[in-house]
Amino acid sequence: MEKTAIIGVAQTKQLRRNVKQNFAEMVYEVTTAALADAGIEIKDIDNIVTVSNDFWDGRTISSMAIQDACGAYEKNVSTVEGDGTFGAHYALTRILSGSYKNTLVVAHSKGSESDTNLITNGMFEPIFTRPLGLDNLTSAAMQARAYMHAFGAKEEDFAEVSVKNHGNALKNPYAQVAKKVSVADVMASRRLADPLKLFDVSPISDGAAAMIISGDEFTRSLRGGKAKPVYIKGAAFYSDAYDLGLRDLARSPALKLAAEKTYSMAGIKNPAKDVDLAEIYDAFSYMELMWYEGLGFCGEGKGAEFMKSGATQINGALPVNASGGVLSAHTVIAAGLIRMIEATLQIRGDAGAHQLDKKINTAIAHGINGPCGQAHCVWALGSSI
Amino acid sequence: MEKTAIIGVAQTKQLRRNVKQNFAEMVYEVTTAALADAGIEIKDIDNIVTVSNDFWDGRTISSMAIQDACGAYEKNVSTVEGDGTFGAHYALTRILSGSYKNTLVVAHSKGSESDTNLITNGMFEPIFTRPLGLDNLTSAAMQARAYMHAFGAKEEDFAEVSVKNHGNALKNPYAQVAKKVSVADVMASRRLADPLKLFDVSPISDGAAAMIISGDEFTRSLRGGKAKPVYIKGAAFYSDAYDLGLRDLARSPALKLAAEKTYSMAGIKNPAKDVDLAEIYDAFSYMELMWYEGLGFCGEGKGAEFMKSGATQINGALPVNASGGVLSAHTVIAAGLIRMIEATLQIRGDAGAHQLDKKINTAIAHGINGPCGQAHCVWALGSSI
Repeated sequence: MEKTAIIGVAQTKQLRRNVKQNFAEMVYEVTTAALADAGIEIKDIDNIVTVSNDFWDGRTISSMAIQDACGAYEKNVSTVEGDGTFGAHYALTRILSGSYKNTLVVAHSKGSESDTNLITNGMFEPIFTRPLGLDNLTSAAMQARAYMHAFGAKEEDFAEVSVKNHGNALKNPYAQVAKKVSVADVMASRRLADPLKLFDVSPISDGAAAMIISGDEFTRSLRGGKAKPVYIKGAAFYSDAYDLGLRDLARSPALKLAAEKTYSMAGIKNPAKDVDLAEIYDAFSYMELMWYEGLGFCGEGKGAEFMKSGATQINGALPVNASGGVLSAHTVIAAGLIRMIEATLQIRGDAGAHQLDKKINTAIAHGINGPCGQAHCVWALGSSI
Repeated sequence: MEKTAIIGVAQTKQLRRNVKQNFAEMVYEVTTAALADAGIEIKDIDNIVTVSNDFWDGRTISSMAIQDACGAYEKNVSTVEGDGTFGAHYALTRILSGSYKNTLVVAHSKGSESDTNLITNGMFEPIFTRPLGLDNLTSAAMQARAYMHAFGAKEEDFAEVSVKNHGNALKNPYAQVAKKVSVADVMASRRLADPLKLFDVSPISDGAAAMIISGDEFTRSLRGGKAKPVYIKGAAFYSDAYDLGLRDLARSPALKLAAEKTYSMAGIKNPAKDVDLAEIYDAFSYMELMWYEGLGFCGEGKGAEFMKSGATQINGALPVNASGGVLSAHTVIAAGLIRMIEATLQIRGDAGAHQLDKKINTAIAHGINGPCGQAHCVWALGSSI
């Protein structure tokens, strides 16, 4: 793969309800901030990918409504529906195609203005499955139960993820839900869908994120400027079946395939040793343990054991979600792009109070799309290539 | 640009109401047919782009529901919201990135199962603009009026496009509305939104389309097989402002920019002379005249004159919409991809009864997205490169 880099990033503070900005205003904020971060202007950007979802925006063809706000007027702009990591991959292939020098990727959503349970109930097949009441929460509860059944994981194991990530969020000014809690607090929190309790579940958030991905020629032209390029070592994604009944919910072959391809591109042979930091899509606490396994950080069914080893703590050998993760702020559509942004900031040394106390050569960022992690996108980023 | 080709195409018959197939079944039909057209199997495909829209599918994250139907299980799959030409561009950049050998693009929608006026009313800004009752039809009527006002075009000029395209559709078995009508018939048809009448307006359609875009190495590996590659000479797209009040509705600078970039990639210097055929997105009859101008087939305001010259008739120097165009079948989301498929079939000599009586070296295909042609995507295709 040719040399490509992330040269500018921005995120809004993620809020339960952003009453001061509509979605175009949030998009404008992160676009201008990402440009400033890269030390360039909108005229330097030659194409744009926006990531959005009609139902969360409460309007149809909503992607067309934010193009002015991200400076896409009389530019080449495309629209992706799904998690932001998939939009970033589109940006990457555009640059690798040789047709563009850089791409601005912008993702947003306002969960406060919609009904997440209704919207995610709507993602299921309408005749037989939707009337069962499945939504993001209830389907996740089924997956958590399947994972417990397959590998003997316990609710207390999931609670440890919640303790870690909500604690990490205390030092991240962009996070929404930050708190010091104990396993007992998580266990005592309100049961929403057995076995998931309030503190196992990510919040509903408003926010936006932007990233500028650049080809090497443009990156080199910025030398001496403000930009601190973070290089892309690998990126891949795979999908599993849509119907939950066709899948083994306790395992994620799509994540395994995506990770293996990314690692082979990035020259990562032993992920638990070669990866210095991971930001992964923990929409629910149990997911983080499952994704450890899919990412090859530990063996199948060994997620809880790996968690208990302390490796993924902020001062561990392989810190996971130093930002607080998705459990601490879940801006659907933007959440995966924010994982990439957090990994970028850590590599640059710009993560502020939650900056890790070590040099990061290789970071992993991860996004998911579809029910129960149907599709997975994995990125390997680093300070050099 | 590296050598890339379209190696397989398929479309369903476009119907007012397809009661026999749900959307996944239509997607399966075109996927298997496009693979057969290329003479390959699903295992030969290494990644997939699906094009869909949640509101038209009546479910959220609907893109995730068709991945099994298009064979994306345990493959790399991405989802684009918008016209199929934009999804095809994603496919193209993937191949040009060097990471993939080919990409299957699949687009579908079932207009019969939704309310197009309600959905397209939903594309406008909700507080000030949506309550005015703007939708695809009423906003198009405003654009038609603006165009008439700017250049003196008449309703009868628009009617001639309707006469030509509905007539061409008589020989296209995939078209939905095919009929021999006169200018007087169009003028006498029911007035839907002044100045647009029933025969000026594209129908609501159900359908799907699929296309396989291939890198040169894979294309060459098929030599001696069934595939008849059609080469991609150029492709580009640009967007205009979202808010209609910020635009000069009588002109399309975004189309002009997209055409100019495509022509420069394809080595087209004089479009009216160098282009042998165009399939363009005539959602309304007046649009075809405007797009002639944007595509540089004639000067600004000269669309009606160019139409009257006979150049764009099926036996003219530059036939436009030999298939019958979007006026004869408007499967939203798929309609632009079908323009590319029709251009491909004409170049291959596989267009059947509406095959042009000349060799086609260069064909143009065109898609639009957003209200009143906010974004335009232009492709140049040919039998050689």
